[in-house]
Amino acid sequence: MVINFIEKLPKIAGIFAVAAFFCVLSSFAEAATGDEAMFRVNNTWMMVSTFLVFIMHLGFAALESGLTQSKNTVNILFKNVSILAIGLLTYTICGFNLMYPGEAWVFGKWFGFAGWGVSSPEGAAGLIAYADGNYTYWTDFLFQGMFAATAATVVSGAVAERIKLKSFLIFSVIFVGFVYPFLGSWKWGAGWLDEMGFYDFAGSTLVHSVGGWGALMGAILLGPRLGKYDKGRIKAIPGHSMPLATIGVFLLWLGWFGFNGGSVLSADPGPVSYVLVTTSLAAAAGVIGAMIMSEVIQKKPDLSMVLNGSLAGLVGITAGADTVSVLSAIIIGFIAGLLVVVAVIFIDTKLRIDDPVGALSVHLVCGIWGTLAVGLFSTNPEHSFVVQLIGVVAYGAVAATAAFVIFAVLKATIGIRVSQDEEKQGLDIGEHGMESYAGFQIFLNQ
Amino acid sequence: MVINFIEKLPKIAGIFAVAAFFCVLSSFAEAATGDEAMFRVNNTWMMVSTFLVFIMHLGFAALESGLTQSKNTVNILFKNVSILAIGLLTYTICGFNLMYPGEAWVFGKWFGFAGWGVSSPEGAAGLIAYADGNYTYWTDFLFQGMFAATAATVVSGAVAERIKLKSFLIFSVIFVGFVYPFLGSWKWGAGWLDEMGFYDFAGSTLVHSVGGWGALMGAILLGPRLGKYDKGRIKAIPGHSMPLATIGVFLLWLGWFGFNGGSVLSADPGPVSYVLVTTSLAAAAGVIGAMIMSEVIQKKPDLSMVLNGSLAGLVGITAGADTVSVLSAIIIGFIAGLLVVVAVIFIDTKLRIDDPVGALSVHLVCGIWGTLAVGLFSTNPEHSFVVQLIGVVAYGAVAATAAFVIFAVLKATIGIRVSQDEEKQGLDIGEHGMESYAGFQIFLNQ
Amino acid sequence: MVINFIEKLPKIAGIFAVAAFFCVLSSFAEAATGDEAMFRVNNTWMMVSTFLVFIMHLGFAALESGLTQSKNTVNILFKNVSILAIGLLTYTICGFNLMYPGEAWVFGKWFGFAGWGVSSPEGAAGLIAYADGNYTYWTDFLFQGMFAATAATVVSGAVAERIKLKSFLIFSVIFVGFVYPFLGSWKWGAGWLDEMGFYDFAGSTLVHSVGGWGALMGAILLGPRLGKYDKGRIKAIPGHSMPLATIGVFLLWLGWFGFNGGSVLSADPGPVSYVLVTTSLAAAAGVIGAMIMSEVIQKKPDLSMVLNGSLAGLVGITAGADTVSVLSAIIIGFIAGLLVVVAVIFIDTKLRIDDPVGALSVHLVCGIWGTLAVGLFSTNPEHSFVVQLIGVVAYGAVAATAAFVIFAVLKATIGIRVSQDEEKQGLDIGEHGMESYAGFQIFLNQ
Repeated sequence: MVINFIEKLPKIAGIFAVAAFFCVLSSFAEAATGDEAMFRVNNTWMMVSTFLVFIMHLGFAALESGLTQSKNTVNILFKNVSILAIGLLTYTICGFNLMYPGEAWVFGKWFGFAGWGVSSPEGAAGLIAYADGNYTYWTDFLFQGMFAATAATVVSGAVAERIKLKSFLIFSVIFVGFVYPFLGSWKWGAGWLDEMGFYDFAGSTLVHSVGGWGALMGAILLGPRLGKYDKGRIKAIPGHSMPLATIGVFLLWLGWFGFNGGSVLSADPGPVSYVLVTTSLAAAAGVIGAMIMSEVIQKKPDLSMVLNGSLAGLVGITAGADTVSVLSAIIIGFIAGLLVVVAVIFIDTKLRIDDPVGALSVHLVCGIWGTLAVGLFSTNPEHSFVVQLIGVVAYGAVAATAAFVIFAVLKATIGIRVSQDEEKQGLDIGEHGMESYAGFQIFLNQ
Repeated sequence: MVINFIEKLPKIAGIFAVAAFFCVLSSFAEAATGDEAMFRVNNTWMMVSTFLVFIMHLGFAALESGLTQSKNTVNILFKNVSILAIGLLTYTICGFNLMYPGEAWVFGKWFGFAGWGVSSPEGAAGLIAYADGNYTYWTDFLFQGMFAATAATVVSGAVAERIKLKSFLIFSVIFVGFVYPFLGSWKWGAGWLDEMGFYDFAGSTLVHSVGGWGALMGAILLGPRLGKYDKGRIKAIPGHSMPLATIGVFLLWLGWFGFNGGSVLSADPGPVSYVLVTTSLAAAAGVIGAMIMSEVIQKKPDLSMVLNGSLAGLVGITAGADTVSVLSAIIIGFIAGLLVVVAVIFIDTKLRIDDPVGALSVHLVCGIWGTLAVGLFSTNPEHSFVVQLIGVVAYGAVAATAAFVIFAVLKATIGIRVSQDEEKQGLDIGEHGMESYAGFQIFLNQ
Repeated sequence: MVINFIEKLPKIAGIFAVAAFFCVLSSFAEAATGDEAMFRVNNTWMMVSTFLVFIMHLGFAALESGLTQSKNTVNILFKNVSILAIGLLTYTICGFNLMYPGEAWVFGKWFGFAGWGVSSPEGAAGLIAYADGNYTYWTDFLFQGMFAATAATVVSGAVAERIKLKSFLIFSVIFVGFVYPFLGSWKWGAGWLDEMGFYDFAGSTLVHSVGGWGALMGAILLGPRLGKYDKGRIKAIPGHSMPLATIGVFLLWLGWFGFNGGSVLSADPGPVSYVLVTTSLAAAAGVIGAMIMSEVIQKKPDLSMVLNGSLAGLVGITAGADTVSVLSAIIIGFIAGLLVVVAVIFIDTKLRIDDPVGALSVHLVCGIWGTLAVGLFSTNPEHSFVVQLIGVVAYGAVAATAAFVIFAVLKATIGIRVSQDEEKQGLDIGEHGMESYAGFQIFLNQ
């Protein structure tokens, strides 16, 4: 029986073999679903992240308007809606292809451009997988497009309550359409800083500091709001709605889950979950840091400081969210929280630069801190403090110069500041002819 | 050696073959996970989309209350919370089975009904895959149920500040529970307009125009708010909170990612990502279109126009989001943005129909525009302008008639308008006995 | 020809067999993707759920500040931001390992502790799959960490407008860091109540009642707000912003999709979709229930009652969302809606416990109702009303005692109530030195 079986084995094997072969063929069809499912889940994750980054624009709009006076609220909301529209459209026209030139470098790895407009290699609804098969061309475009506008939004906060609408919109078109993506190509477009080993996971420098440098130039060239530093006295100009500011901060924190979580560029559970943990704990530690520092310096814990503390923690962890330990994330966030309170007070009382919402302290100061912190805390031995510093300086030099030139040219031509009368009356009436809270009895602070 | 191997090949092959066979068996078990993962990711995407459509109800509540007077805010919020509850419950009782009758057509492909209540074919927690295995019965029900209530919410805006609460709630029950799903069956339920080749991807007509026709009938039968068109003069009645209106618009835009993205009915990365790009760019172009037209006509850029511009772009792209080019999407959204400003002013000053929030201009005018635009811009040669027009007219005729009859019967019986005293004092006190902003000093506009 | 083929079959089979074998090898690589995709989609779902639970903290902040006076708004927002930070950090330090001791039980299945801090078994960015391979260690930590803070937030509402900031923060650290996770271990950590068969799907008892008992103790020990029950008369103290309260409720409902949907602990389409349906319908039925009861008792439908009605439905369905029929879910929600209106009025007028936002009625009363409802409506015959009752009593006894002890010790030491002057002036000025609505003319209600 056994011998008989062995003799017949070749024939039996034949049947097994043919059966196996066709099974394998059909199993390929099945197995393809595994790949297809991976593609779908990665793409879905990136789309969810895109929505979260989108909602940051509402977060910025709410925070900025909450921390300023009610007579300028319509203007701020208008700016923030416009920036998003401008950001998405300029990114479509040229930004995306400036930031990700692919092989189309023009000057070394410093400047590249892959052409005007956007189009998927596989046609409009093409199922082309991009970025190692993780998501589509269109996903990549939209996720990055949502990022783009945030850089200009940072500027918006620092120049609030006195900038001319038209000048700000022109600045935004240039800054978001050209400066941000050009600078972004140095690292995320695989340019020279990327080759040097500079690390900025989700944009402490590429997004937040770049925006922060623009904000600094704008605030300096505009000068302070009327009455802010009169006769040597520093006047506090409180925001008109703390609920609105708080809504803004919670939405920004929410959005950061996509900002950092999406920057993994796939739904890979290990890094995604880990990044969300470091992000959350840094934000929480930023709250506690700011609470303590505010209690120490201001004696009473200031809500706007604590709100900025959470953002400080978030900006701080953004550069290294995937590469520092949990304890390091807490330390980075906590220091950012301490730092933001000191910076807000220092910039206001010592430098006397008028930044109505604390954008410089949050995005510029903590953006730099977060980028350097990668050099101090990263678990990856290839990350170097010196290279991080080079990146910070290089980005600062070019972003600040570019923003200065744009604002200076605008100042010399159409002007960047509204009239004194308009500023006193509020930009809502002056620029838009409408009130933000019709029917409410409101005292103007000026 | 080689010869020996060839001779032994059959036996060696036998071992290989048997090994391969059992490997294949076990690989089938693995491959099943591929299918299961596809099911999970599709279902997860649809659930995320459901959440996004859900949040549109907060968007509508915020937009509508922000653009109206503070004395009617409680009333508006009450209506919007109620509509969602009514929509979900009536959809459970009969709406879902009216809209998707399956084989249970009663009169041709005009009217069908698959029975009362909802129940999964596989029992309460059954793992039945619905819609080509993409998601469960319950997912389908909940996603569509969230859509249902939006049609009545559109009406809410146009009849705000003067409609009796009870009458509006009765209208909503009938409109959401019967009219909307009955009309929906014509296309999404595979009815006669679907067979004719009418195309409405996510509801420019099925949701927005249908709601818009209801809004038109309500606004006409109610008449304008007191003082709105006194002695030939047109009085502007500004909204009481532009931050609230802006929060509303951002949340609506966010929700539209689920409204359009979920209408792909799977997480298929190609169409999903593409639809989100066209949706976003149309909204952005709508902002720019409305900004330009507002600047031209009104001289100062009006925030409420720009907010409505983004919604106009979103409503406009909804019918063809998956079937037009990126450039066409931008054009459709831009034209919608121009159109909405002209329509708001035309309806107010020429037609003198009082629509407090611009619902007619956004949902009816741009809903029609978007549906017709499919006939003009679609990349699918089967889409025909004439058929699109037939759909627009058919939906308009029945939706308007139905809404007229419901409102007219209510007007003739329990009345649809609050008393003049109540309107002057505000519906918050009149209908609900409470204030929206207790403690705040507010001037009534009337 | 045929004979020739049969003779050659062994050799041909050999080729087939070898081909099949290598195909199978490569197909294993493919098939692995199926498992990996499952892991990714489950983890992605859990992260989305985490975000939704996160946004509940904004929901609570908005609801609580909306339903209270504007002079205490900064204080409430400050508390709610702080609680989230405290919750996440204490959960990191000890909460997670108290709640999920694994094998590290110390006293029977009553108390366990798996050690200080958090660390993935596979290192910082380890790809370890947790919970039957559905998600990572970090996902588990973050999802549960977001839950933790909600228990203290419930307390916040009931003690609003009169509690000392410092005392509340100390209470929160202890309650969230120790009491909540210790109690949680009894059921979700696989402790004694879990072994007894107690069922609480997503936390009607473990989260909401536990918070509710803390709220009850706080409200009793603090006593009512000044003027609330003067000379036998009950004074209504209306909330200052109904839009804010409504935003809060919509965000809480949204968050509940993650609270309940994530409690499935995977993206399994059957239970996830079903749970979202029962959750939504219970919320909708709660709205209708509260609307009817408010109309009956109060004659005019009260918006805050209807808002609390939706939350009542949500709290009520939380214990049994996966185990009751659709009809039962509607009944549970509807009864919760009726119940919450009666409870709010009873607690205010009969018990004279001052609960500014109705937290006791929503979270304690409906949390108990929902837990007992599992015993009445569950489709699982193993669920027993008696065991549910034992769970309710056990949690109540320990949570109430713990909260009482903490508050009593604080009261005897640093005090828990602000001074009468501070309460009259508002806690915003008293505790934080700032206004919530700078520039607005507001009448203090006291």
